[in-house]
Amino acid sequence: MAKPGIPKGTRDFSPSEVAKRQYIIGAIKHHFESFGFQPIETPSFENSETLMGKYGEEGDRLIFKILNSGNFFFDKKGIELPQSLDGLLVNSAETISTEQLVDLNRFTSKISEKALRYDLTVPFARYVVQHQNDIEFPFKRYQIQPVWRADRPQKGRYREFFQCDADVVGSTSLWQEVELVQLYDAVFTTLGLNGATIKINNRKVLSGIAEVIGAKDKLIDFTVALDKLDKIGEDGVKKEMLEKGLTADAIDKVQPLFNFTGSIDEKLHKLSELLATSAEGTKGVEELRFICDNVAELGLGKSILDLDVTLARGLNYYTGAIFEVSAPKEVALGSIGGGGRYDDLTGIFGLKNMSGVGISFGLDRIYLVLEELGLFPETVTESTKVLFINFGEKEALYALKAIKQLREKGVKAELYPDNAKIGKQFTHADKRAIPFAVLTGDSEISTTTFTLKNLATGEQENVTLDVLLEKIR
Amino acid sequence: MAKPGIPKGTRDFSPSEVAKRQYIIGAIKHHFESFGFQPIETPSFENSETLMGKYGEEGDRLIFKILNSGNFFFDKKGIELPQSLDGLLVNSAETISTEQLVDLNRFTSKISEKALRYDLTVPFARYVVQHQNDIEFPFKRYQIQPVWRADRPQKGRYREFFQCDADVVGSTSLWQEVELVQLYDAVFTTLGLNGATIKINNRKVLSGIAEVIGAKDKLIDFTVALDKLDKIGEDGVKKEMLEKGLTADAIDKVQPLFNFTGSIDEKLHKLSELLATSAEGTKGVEELRFICDNVAELGLGKSILDLDVTLARGLNYYTGAIFEVSAPKEVALGSIGGGGRYDDLTGIFGLKNMSGVGISFGLDRIYLVLEELGLFPETVTESTKVLFINFGEKEALYALKAIKQLREKGVKAELYPDNAKIGKQFTHADKRAIPFAVLTGDSEISTTTFTLKNLATGEQENVTLDVLLEKIR
Repeated sequence: MAKPGIPKGTRDFSPSEVAKRQYIIGAIKHHFESFGFQPIETPSFENSETLMGKYGEEGDRLIFKILNSGNFFFDKKGIELPQSLDGLLVNSAETISTEQLVDLNRFTSKISEKALRYDLTVPFARYVVQHQNDIEFPFKRYQIQPVWRADRPQKGRYREFFQCDADVVGSTSLWQEVELVQLYDAVFTTLGLNGATIKINNRKVLSGIAEVIGAKDKLIDFTVALDKLDKIGEDGVKKEMLEKGLTADAIDKVQPLFNFTGSIDEKLHKLSELLATSAEGTKGVEELRFICDNVAELGLGKSILDLDVTLARGLNYYTGAIFEVSAPKEVALGSIGGGGRYDDLTGIFGLKNMSGVGISFGLDRIYLVLEELGLFPETVTESTKVLFINFGEKEALYALKAIKQLREKGVKAELYPDNAKIGKQFTHADKRAIPFAVLTGDSEISTTTFTLKNLATGEQENVTLDVLLEKIR
Repeated sequence: MAKPGIPKGTRDFSPSEVAKRQYIIGAIKHHFESFGFQPIETPSFENSETLMGKYGEEGDRLIFKILNSGNFFFDKKGIELPQSLDGLLVNSAETISTEQLVDLNRFTSKISEKALRYDLTVPFARYVVQHQNDIEFPFKRYQIQPVWRADRPQKGRYREFFQCDADVVGSTSLWQEVELVQLYDAVFTTLGLNGATIKINNRKVLSGIAEVIGAKDKLIDFTVALDKLDKIGEDGVKKEMLEKGLTADAIDKVQPLFNFTGSIDEKLHKLSELLATSAEGTKGVEELRFICDNVAELGLGKSILDLDVTLARGLNYYTGAIFEVSAPKEVALGSIGGGGRYDDLTGIFGLKNMSGVGISFGLDRIYLVLEELGLFPETVTESTKVLFINFGEKEALYALKAIKQLREKGVKAELYPDNAKIGKQFTHADKRAIPFAVLTGDSEISTTTFTLKNLATGEQENVTLDVLLEKIR
């Protein structure tokens, strides 16, 4: 029989991996809660109509759909496979016609009415609308749950992964943005991560730039090109802008953006000059100034705040602030978090005028960063502290009585279950990195003592239970 | 637009529900770990072949299958809907023929290769076999993750629910059973649950009984009938046994079981007499005696251990001990946990001779029990401790500086994000059950003090930050 496996893009987590993930999640939860966010959980699958059409065409394709269950596979009228698809060779998006795609989607919707959660934002919006009468606004919620995407798996990209989101809905106050920057910093500081850069931008600034250069209709083309500055350089970006139909004159106007360095204050100053004629752009600069000034007043721990006008993620939904967090430069691991302000979070479900702002932590990336920088405390993966060697029935019972007391005092203690050869039992302790062993024979039982062995040093001593507890703590 | 909803059988969890569930899970995790169990996590979906055929025909039907993703819906050769199913009226298991079912399953396997986890035991067995070279045996693992079943939803039965499992594989030692009873008791004792009954039985005892009454081939019929003693009484059970082909003589022999009361010792004594001629039955009695004697020696907290010969769950896989935990009698909520010993856990994946024993906690039921008995501590759902009233930009910044310090000291503190009417802000604190408010105006700022208001008593005083911290802790 071949060894069993798991679907591509999914993972098993071993005990030490779970412990490390829980360590990160623990830090995130702690700060989410100390900032007043409250946890909610939503089902792993939603009705398909809740998810479909919310993530664009590409997103729809990446949503995992669940077959209607059991023999209820077919609806009451029966279904037929559309003739256009019959016997069709379909193995990539390119070989299917639009008409066939429509047929396929219609067929799929008949045999599948539920789909796995693709992110936590749409389920959250659904939750807010569904439970709006029970929610006290502004509502600060956090959610740490897995999501699923039928992406082509590759290094660092999985088909099942956790999202850790904190969002506030029901207030347009910019103090939220200030606090979200603090929240990022609080988590990274707790995790010992030095020099994560919290980059901030504002959708209104990008719109303003497009406006002042007379390219309001080319906002996306413009920002997509600008976003590549790091990769393809100033000339490359300019070339792409020209190709996309921006005029040489327009590009001249944004010349300051190509060498956009200096302090946040200096950058804000340059931006306010550049955007002086755009009401929207000026508003964006004011928002950024409010956030950056107050973050500076309040101070950050181990993170850095920076203003990055090339930051243009989520332009199809973010309407105000845009956040992205870069891992410290010494690890080339890219983004470890992101977020922003969306003025109409719940409109898709019929509840208007509900502004939201939120951030997300990239658990898998943060894990890799901490691993690479050696920032996981050793204690994180520490499991059992002491193994009692099993010498037989009477001795085992004596051991378990002590183990019970140790556990009540918070010590992780175990009895080796079998009366195996002592060498085998010590090997077990060694392989599991258990630091102490206890031996209990007739002489220990008769004196109500224990022989404690430090497995690192080999040192051995006869002690009472109280002393034992003290020694191994 | 109609309010959006969620699929039947699934649930949203509100902040207070999440907090209460986390409270229970926290107690379970704490004791799992103090007993030396280590956490693993497996993917939400497995390859269909890993799950199918492992839970019987009924189980197969209840497994949620995932459609192959995107346009990769069809395999390279294209697929055809089997003619036998075309246009068929199929809406219950009864209206489909065996031949059609085979066709349907073949069709399903072409368009779906993955399925949602149905329990945690089969994925655990798969994990053990797949990672056998990295695992140090005996391996004590715990796993707390959701599972999905396409069951017809009803009160207390959901299509998505959490399982909380602890299992040991790689040792046949009965000390494991002893410790698992202790583990149940430790968790229930921590949760303040008085009088949960941990019922124990042994598969070998049931086999022995069937043997001594000459009905070895009727073990299942016999136990199914006996299991109904509570519901249909002695006469009912006897009637059913006769109907199932047991002889009157055989039924006479098990007469002691119909009034099987007394202490565990008395019950064991009766059983050993009844089973004297059966080697297997006698072995079962010895195992039960070992477990019960040692549990008694070690002592239990708030739970009761009882021997229940009618307990017959999981007879198609359990080979030794069988456990089931009943909620305290004053709440009619049935089973809150179960488990047992299975001698061949991993054989289905080709790894022989790997005995396992484990228990499971029923999170949803335990939740209902604690709710009904009022056992959730009030602090569990306590979120934000103090709300700072927002009087404007300058005051908000002053407040956030204090809030930052409070959070660093572990106090959950918030600023109301908007400079709204003060009444509205107090109402917000009230609706969220926040116990304290802080007011900061010019006079507070000029004296570096804070006006702390106890929202329960209405009491108000002007204090320094240190005193504030002391007062609200």
